[in-house]
Amino acid sequence: MRRPQIGIMGSSEADANQMMIAKHAGACVARVGAALVTGGRDGVMQAASRGCAEAGGIVIAVTPFTPMEQVNEFTHYVIPTGLGWARNVITAISGDIILVVGGAAGTLSEIAYAWMYDRPIVALSASGGWAAKLAGERIDHRRSDVIVDCKDVEALEPILRKLLAERPVKTIPPVGPDAP
Amino acid sequence: MRRPQIGIMGSSEADANQMMIAKHAGACVARVGAALVTGGRDGVMQAASRGCAEAGGIVIAVTPFTPMEQVNEFTHYVIPTGLGWARNVITAISGDIILVVGGAAGTLSEIAYAWMYDRPIVALSASGGWAAKLAGERIDHRRSDVIVDCKDVEALEPILRKLLAERPVKTIPPVGPDAP
Amino acid sequence: MRRPQIGIMGSSEADANQMMIAKHAGACVARVGAALVTGGRDGVMQAASRGCAEAGGIVIAVTPFTPMEQVNEFTHYVIPTGLGWARNVITAISGDIILVVGGAAGTLSEIAYAWMYDRPIVALSASGGWAAKLAGERIDHRRSDVIVDCKDVEALEPILRKLLAERPVKTIPPVGPDAP
Amino acid sequence: MRRPQIGIMGSSEADANQMMIAKHAGACVARVGAALVTGGRDGVMQAASRGCAEAGGIVIAVTPFTPMEQVNEFTHYVIPTGLGWARNVITAISGDIILVVGGAAGTLSEIAYAWMYDRPIVALSASGGWAAKLAGERIDHRRSDVIVDCKDVEALEPILRKLLAERPVKTIPPVGPDAP
Repeated sequence: MRRPQIGIMGSSEADANQMMIAKHAGACVARVGAALVTGGRDGVMQAASRGCAEAGGIVIAVTPFTPMEQVNEFTHYVIPTGLGWARNVITAISGDIILVVGGAAGTLSEIAYAWMYDRPIVALSASGGWAAKLAGERIDHRRSDVIVDCKDVEALEPILRKLLAERPVKTIPPVGPDAP
Repeated sequence: MRRPQIGIMGSSEADANQMMIAKHAGACVARVGAALVTGGRDGVMQAASRGCAEAGGIVIAVTPFTPMEQVNEFTHYVIPTGLGWARNVITAISGDIILVVGGAAGTLSEIAYAWMYDRPIVALSASGGWAAKLAGERIDHRRSDVIVDCKDVEALEPILRKLLAERPVKTIPPVGPDAP
Repeated sequence: MRRPQIGIMGSSEADANQMMIAKHAGACVARVGAALVTGGRDGVMQAASRGCAEAGGIVIAVTPFTPMEQVNEFTHYVIPTGLGWARNVITAISGDIILVVGGAAGTLSEIAYAWMYDRPIVALSASGGWAAKLAGERIDHRRSDVIVDCKDVEALEPILRKLLAERPVKTIPPVGPDAP
Repeated sequence: MRRPQIGIMGSSEADANQMMIAKHAGACVARVGAALVTGGRDGVMQAASRGCAEAGGIVIAVTPFTPMEQVNEFTHYVIPTGLGWARNVITAISGDIILVVGGAAGTLSEIAYAWMYDRPIVALSASGGWAAKLAGERIDHRRSDVIVDCKDVEALEPILRKLLAERPVKTIPPVGPDAP
């Protein structure tokens, strides 16, 4: 019953090119039938949310704040964490696939976490920032794959369809130790 | 565009009475047009999710685990946190209203957090546990209201409709310090 | 090489009686040869830190803030978390023993976490608050012990000596899964 | 009364060169009169702790685990977080200065957080890993300084003395919002 989810990571401050790429990427998430997860703020997060919502998709935001209300206006569901930037570990793993658009230090922390927790990562490298610097790269030796370099947002949809097809959505029993 | 959300807190180990109450409460959340947020595990969380999903509602789970898959089968969207029981602070504040069914120490931590972060709390006191112990009580002096005592699950729907009507869903700009 | 640690939980707003009890308890922690861990803020945390430091003990603070500097002046070492109240899960488990003085909702969340993570808990019940309400009680059925009721701060030292003697400080290999 | 603290970040799996550099760096932290903060595990964390402790310094560990005991044997004080890798945000900001030795994805997340939370960062670039890749670099445009490139561990002590001299240890009132 679980539905596919795709996260889009990127800065709250973004230039016009990054906003356009984020919006296209958000729409693409809707078109492949996945829900979008973002950090709920402005910039890349807002543009991606808008793109997804306007294409008929569902948007979930995991915010650093505590109020339910403090979230961009293109979000359907909100998970406030109250954790400040520590919420990045959560956004980074709340997708079956993680996309990166541009990106400053916060996004870099999310790339690191998505890598550690074994999420496939796709960098939209035309957006600059850490997406461009790490596209095609390996963060460390624990994984044999690389961060997929998607140079053109038009090429994103088939990449997402392929990655989703390789990862049928399923559930396993939610049991086990609650804590490390 | 944000939609109302109601959280149901309760233990992963639950007796038949608690499971029945949780399932009714979950269905009630769907009927009042809200999405349900749970901790994604067994027991009260599963029964509430089932009740909501079978009544046509949307279920979001915030789990202590890291895999996307590790969540009960009545969940539509999953937010894995990797935080162990520290995720309780997030489930506790991820609703416009928080309901409590039964409850051991984990649920007690969630009641404390929902209180601190100013969420209205409704205890289904017939379910026993901390719901019964704290129904009608005040956790401390920072708030003038009490934990609403809902003695009968049949009385829950009007309580939720009233609380939702008092809290029109809205958004405010997602700006401000990321961190305390 | 690890040294014993005792945590003191309590509110940032405290009355004169709670401050006096907290200061005595902090001094007692120093006398039994343990380091004190607090949340680093005012009120009970400050009074306990002062009592410990003035008696020659070491004080470590785990704060909700991000700056190194934002901590009461009786603290030797600071661990800023940036987690807001979510840091309570950490203070609650950063002692071989956890003491409770007074206590509002934040302290209640810490009692719940100390219980879940199996730390011995001693409530200084003359201080009121949740310390008084839960002294001698069991939070749930996972443990067979109770929260120790220490009615008089003069009785605290032998209680701490006994609990420490039962728990020789040791280390085990820091390996295993990093995450739940 | 607060004492200076220096964090050393690095992997739990380390080669002989990284272990040697970490041990030297730990001893250097002791010599400049600061306490060492690590993640409490094996590899770089253990070697740095050993170096510091054997030079007479104090070692504090912030672990991803929940037991007090689960920490390397060269640690004096332990702060268990139960947060899994999310504890990286805490280790990254628990020093007046942050040192980096080698480093895989976990260390990369710590560099990103130390940058976001404005801690001075020194990379021991002869150790390889992300320390080598980011030495002399800027993570993003929010800061005008760079990650200091310390090519030789023998050069570390004057760098630390200079950075500490520029940052007199002080405290500010621990008041303000607990949460973002």
